[in-house]
Amino acid sequence: MNIEMIRAAATRLAGHARRTPLLSSPFLDDIAGRRVWIKPECLQHTGSFKFRGAWSAVSALSEAARARGVIAFSSGNHAQGVALAARSHGTQAVIIMPQDAPRVKIENTKALGAEVVLYDRANGEDRDAIGDELSAARGLTLIKPYDDPEVIAGQGTTGLEIAQQAAEKGISKADVIVCCGGGGFSSGIALALEADAPQLRVRPAEPQGYDDVARSLASGRIERNKSLAGSLCDAIVTPQPGVLTFPILKRLAGPGLVVSEKDAMRAMALAFNRLKIVAEPGGAVALAAALFHGAEIGGEDVIVTISGGNVDRDVFQRALDMEHEDFRQDRGDAA
Amino acid sequence: MNIEMIRAAATRLAGHARRTPLLSSPFLDDIAGRRVWIKPECLQHTGSFKFRGAWSAVSALSEAARARGVIAFSSGNHAQGVALAARSHGTQAVIIMPQDAPRVKIENTKALGAEVVLYDRANGEDRDAIGDELSAARGLTLIKPYDDPEVIAGQGTTGLEIAQQAAEKGISKADVIVCCGGGGFSSGIALALEADAPQLRVRPAEPQGYDDVARSLASGRIERNKSLAGSLCDAIVTPQPGVLTFPILKRLAGPGLVVSEKDAMRAMALAFNRLKIVAEPGGAVALAAALFHGAEIGGEDVIVTISGGNVDRDVFQRALDMEHEDFRQDRGDAA
Repeated sequence: MNIEMIRAAATRLAGHARRTPLLSSPFLDDIAGRRVWIKPECLQHTGSFKFRGAWSAVSALSEAARARGVIAFSSGNHAQGVALAARSHGTQAVIIMPQDAPRVKIENTKALGAEVVLYDRANGEDRDAIGDELSAARGLTLIKPYDDPEVIAGQGTTGLEIAQQAAEKGISKADVIVCCGGGGFSSGIALALEADAPQLRVRPAEPQGYDDVARSLASGRIERNKSLAGSLCDAIVTPQPGVLTFPILKRLAGPGLVVSEKDAMRAMALAFNRLKIVAEPGGAVALAAALFHGAEIGGEDVIVTISGGNVDRDVFQRALDMEHEDFRQDRGDAA
Repeated sequence: MNIEMIRAAATRLAGHARRTPLLSSPFLDDIAGRRVWIKPECLQHTGSFKFRGAWSAVSALSEAARARGVIAFSSGNHAQGVALAARSHGTQAVIIMPQDAPRVKIENTKALGAEVVLYDRANGEDRDAIGDELSAARGLTLIKPYDDPEVIAGQGTTGLEIAQQAAEKGISKADVIVCCGGGGFSSGIALALEADAPQLRVRPAEPQGYDDVARSLASGRIERNKSLAGSLCDAIVTPQPGVLTFPILKRLAGPGLVVSEKDAMRAMALAFNRLKIVAEPGGAVALAAALFHGAEIGGEDVIVTISGGNVDRDVFQRALDMEHEDFRQDRGDAA
């Protein structure tokens, strides 16, 4: 896993992944007390950075392997990224999902051309066994969500762009806060910045109660989350940092930042109001850290990622309502 | 008014206005029955394309005039664009607004550094007289919202970008649907495309009942709107096409497209779901035309602008609710 793999992935992604812009708002700068720069990967194809890693992995396969197809386990952003990347390469993606996954996610993944195989997690069906059987029978290649060098390389292309865009803005030194689950996005960006902008340092951001990476960085060894369910930030909740990603983060990333779900929702509302973009709760934790945890951050500039925007209408509306209530309270209006 | 003014404006805007990306979604392509390319100016500074024209106008002033300051009449997107452009040039903007304008718009404009002067339209106070008096006393330059060559030139820089981005995507021929009020955005883009991509043709889009430009293009002379109030698409409602903008549109633009408010709201919900961007009702009329008026459009590709994203929470939530109801009805779910 090295910078050359990220540069090679960038070449394969050129003209296929979007080069997302770097946004800002004077209103957000005021809240944060420093300049805040936002890398909105919610504007990436399929609404999250996952498309980059998926494209990188599919495009790195041998022609024969690619023709046989790929397989992934996911009910979320990784599923959609793999589905679209496979379809765009003219090959088949099989996505294994729990049968109680939201119907809209199943339908979106099918609409992107994937074959969706459902399993019954309530009755203890083993998804890995199903995956192994399908892979063996059809010669499918498994694309893991983060612990795969080509996936990390794809996510790292975001870091190459951040390095360039920061230089254009004259930002010489800053923390780069990255929404963090298994660490594919964070570790890829960290490797890219090490090479192209060593004065920019990755800080992983996580939701409270699901801060395995922050705790792992603090203790120096891989720590697990106690629970995986129940978070609105589900897009970035994983059992533990990856075996490939953690050593990279340990070497290159600064201390983790941990934000409340409420602050993530407030950040979603501010992204709506001030940036005109749609962030999912997990995608807003880095912005929340920049806005509401300023004392834990140094420097005049801070860069944050919005990792995705795949949020249901009702959760989004709740975020807008919450911010509105806060605003009324701040102004002293009647409730 | 010519292409050289647009190119000069682009030079002055470089590094200050954002080069917005060109977005797309396979889900929108399916609805439209052709490829739909979206130029999201809601991601521009201050949340609308108006920043381009404002920057162009302020930067084109002589140093002495710029030092004295600028003045504009607006309670909306033009106000915010002029306020930020003036502040970034280190000069003062005076914005004249009705005193019953939404408080949040007044506060946003002040927060961007403008001096806001309120007038009482209910009691017949004459805003032009107030403006004339202030301009005379302080030597302020009036920046009109659309009927000004430097403003048109600034908006036209969007067209230069569309021409480049279309070429990168291999789009050789297409309609470019532009959200249209007084015609500054449409005419600027039309002039840019005439020079750089003559196979791309501007089609103005307007809300039903406020379709002065469509009717003017049909009759060949300037027609007025009967009413100016009562539209959710208020950001793009003006009395009539401009004296400078209409001749350009008459020469270069194709027939106007007119969409219902309901279709604009559905397009907002689809922009939320599929593009992860926030469109205001007036900013969504071009996308609505592409999605729901396909029979009036030719070709395999269509390009649309999203002109702005400055929408109140409650209107946005209503748009998401409406689309949800439609979706349930389409599927035959119980209400």
